[in-house]
Amino acid sequence: MDSYDKLTEELVKGNRRALSKAITLAESHRAEDRDNIGNLLSQFAGEEPESFRLAVSGPPGVGKSTFIDAFGERVARDHRLAVLTIDPSSPVSGGSILGDKTRMERLSSLPSVFVRPSPSGKGLGGTARNTADVIRLCEIAGYDFIILETVGVGQSETTAFQLTDHFLLLLNAGGGDELQGIKRGIMELADTFLFTKEDSIPSSIMKRSMGDLRTALHVLRPSFDIDRHLLSVAALNPSSLEKLSEKLLPVFDKAVGSQEWLDKRESQRLQRFTGLLEVALIDRIQSDPRFSKQLTLVKKKVKSGELTAHNAVYQLLESIWPLK
Amino acid sequence: MDSYDKLTEELVKGNRRALSKAITLAESHRAEDRDNIGNLLSQFAGEEPESFRLAVSGPPGVGKSTFIDAFGERVARDHRLAVLTIDPSSPVSGGSILGDKTRMERLSSLPSVFVRPSPSGKGLGGTARNTADVIRLCEIAGYDFIILETVGVGQSETTAFQLTDHFLLLLNAGGGDELQGIKRGIMELADTFLFTKEDSIPSSIMKRSMGDLRTALHVLRPSFDIDRHLLSVAALNPSSLEKLSEKLLPVFDKAVGSQEWLDKRESQRLQRFTGLLEVALIDRIQSDPRFSKQLTLVKKKVKSGELTAHNAVYQLLESIWPLK
Repeated sequence: MDSYDKLTEELVKGNRRALSKAITLAESHRAEDRDNIGNLLSQFAGEEPESFRLAVSGPPGVGKSTFIDAFGERVARDHRLAVLTIDPSSPVSGGSILGDKTRMERLSSLPSVFVRPSPSGKGLGGTARNTADVIRLCEIAGYDFIILETVGVGQSETTAFQLTDHFLLLLNAGGGDELQGIKRGIMELADTFLFTKEDSIPSSIMKRSMGDLRTALHVLRPSFDIDRHLLSVAALNPSSLEKLSEKLLPVFDKAVGSQEWLDKRESQRLQRFTGLLEVALIDRIQSDPRFSKQLTLVKKKVKSGELTAHNAVYQLLESIWPLK
Repeated sequence: MDSYDKLTEELVKGNRRALSKAITLAESHRAEDRDNIGNLLSQFAGEEPESFRLAVSGPPGVGKSTFIDAFGERVARDHRLAVLTIDPSSPVSGGSILGDKTRMERLSSLPSVFVRPSPSGKGLGGTARNTADVIRLCEIAGYDFIILETVGVGQSETTAFQLTDHFLLLLNAGGGDELQGIKRGIMELADTFLFTKEDSIPSSIMKRSMGDLRTALHVLRPSFDIDRHLLSVAALNPSSLEKLSEKLLPVFDKAVGSQEWLDKRESQRLQRFTGLLEVALIDRIQSDPRFSKQLTLVKKKVKSGELTAHNAVYQLLESIWPLK
């Protein structure tokens, strides 16, 4: 275990290579690696660094990379910034077709910025489980502003929402059907709605799209502060970006340490616990010789169709863990 | 329980109202309702109806509803068709902004077609767990062709893939960055790639988009039968739709009962079992008085930050289920 002591030491110093290595271990498919990271993290129990966690989400093509590249550079003037991308749609091999390597070039070159594209975990929930640890590792390495990018519109948004302090949803203004892609759930999750490409979209269209969203928000979230959290930007236009930053950054800075922020941290810790517990229980059943035989038997019957999944679960639980 | 006997009886007769009610129970947040549906399903253990399960997916705006409305009508000439939409992006309240009610009007009016928009379950995996039972209920009610529509590009695709026999991915031909929205994972999942709006997209653009995808598939999936499974359609053009149907429907009909189909059914049953087991284990810990006290204690420490999630899981498992 002394290689982990060394890793911890370097991590605390903010060594980027140590951080990369620790993240790789946290995302490993080997339970042993993840457990070792769990042990590493436990040394920092009770410490809650004053970091801010921002989720940036939106449909494909909305300009998430462009926005993060520009906005991140602004953030990095006052913060050490870590940018994590989760890629929920790669169940087989991980990674996107076009690759994330060439994205966010400007940002990657800054010394105070750490950019890490993370492949999705196996199956449902995998991403969430890993990402929580990855965020903690970044914070231990001294990064006090975390941007979590999510791709697409779907389940990953719920995950990102649970893991972060603020959910920024990027939107395309357009021909009127842009709201079709946004489901009500996301409308209720987002803390800030940001229309991108302000420069290249005709202002009449931008106006109408923002008006439509305003109407929808009025109905769905009557107490939502629309004026402060329905915005637009042209990320590549420095003055537009600066205007946006002057609105958003004080909100973010003020949030850190607030009661709401503390509450979120608590629920994030609990979420992480429940996620880990689910995995651990299944692992235990599979690896404990007292149960694994019974599991194999029941699985065989499920496979052949002799037992339904419901009955199989009931039988298994009763045999290994009878109710009194 | 005799209300369930009645429900089962009506379900087997193909009574639509009974099917609607059973689905509502399968999607209920009350464990008791879901268990009752589990018992209902167990009466049909070992029966594997000769149904075909088709996933239809694609980014927002690609025309999934339009396609399913038109293609479904064609399918319904030879099959009893159930169309299920899962909405993975509604973690808070369920349901989409624009609503699914006005969609697929033509299809909904056909006597041999059952259309059901299903809200997403709570949290990760909820959808998958419910949807597997919902599909079985439709089959018990005599529907032999199931279309499962998924929204967006993300985790829900993995779920849909696991639940179905064939994964049809709809795509927009366009300005060249359409591949950015498709992640490699989905490229590896899809059984058929279908570009929509053939009529309204300039043929040079359509050609280039299909060519780009062909190139990508050559690299990613060298053994994939591109000629048969890279297609285009104008769903609203009857002759285009008929041409497509003549290609796809024989493939689907031939699949039913094949070895590959049988293998998929087996793995679908196992998947369902594992999903249910995870939930049941957590439920058991929460509801069994022997464990719930310990759980409450540990959760409190996680909430305060005194224990990390990893350590808490370890402590809890050791106390309720010590390794020998």
